[in-house]
Amino acid sequence: MSRFRLEIRVVPRPGLLDPEGKAIQSALHSLDYEQVHEVRVGKLLYLNVEAASSEHAREGAEAMCKRLLANPVTEDFEIDVGEAVEQTVPA
Amino acid sequence: MSRFRLEIRVVPRPGLLDPEGKAIQSALHSLDYEQVHEVRVGKLLYLNVEAASSEHAREGAEAMCKRLLANPVTEDFEIDVGEAVEQTVPA
Repeated sequence: MSRFRLEIRVVPRPGLLDPEGKAIQSALHSLDYEQVHEVRVGKLLYLNVEAASSEHAREGAEAMCKRLLANPVTEDFEIDVGEAVEQTVPA
Repeated sequence: MSRFRLEIRVVPRPGLLDPEGKAIQSALHSLDYEQVHEVRVGKLLYLNVEAASSEHAREGAEAMCKRLLANPVTEDFEIDVGEAVEQTVPA
């Protein structure tokens, strides 16, 4: 088994309203950053996961996104599996 | 002037407690995803910005992070400037 570091990006679907993004955009405008035309806000998750291979790590993360981490109606997710961080030797 | 798409990742500094990450980790454990050893949660921001060059776009984004988007005490940020999306011709 190895440890993998996963980066998961959960973002609102295109076309859906993003009230948090709108709020940040108007805060930026009120600070005179008028060059900002759109802001969308997502969640960034870093997971440290034990898995037999990077494919297993990815499959597990997809299942977690569908069950808990992302809202399947309003959000999309992307998963990047990093290099194996360390080998873990079973005791 | 061109439009640039920026990706900004705002993450809690290493070593700081991340209560949201801890909550997600224990939710995952209660769903039997015992292979998850650490979860850290950050913010992902996509900005559509008008700027003369990608360097200007990055400098503007750094200023925005320092003033509004990131907490300088508890968070680090990284900025990726994407390709120019379109040229904007002044009227």
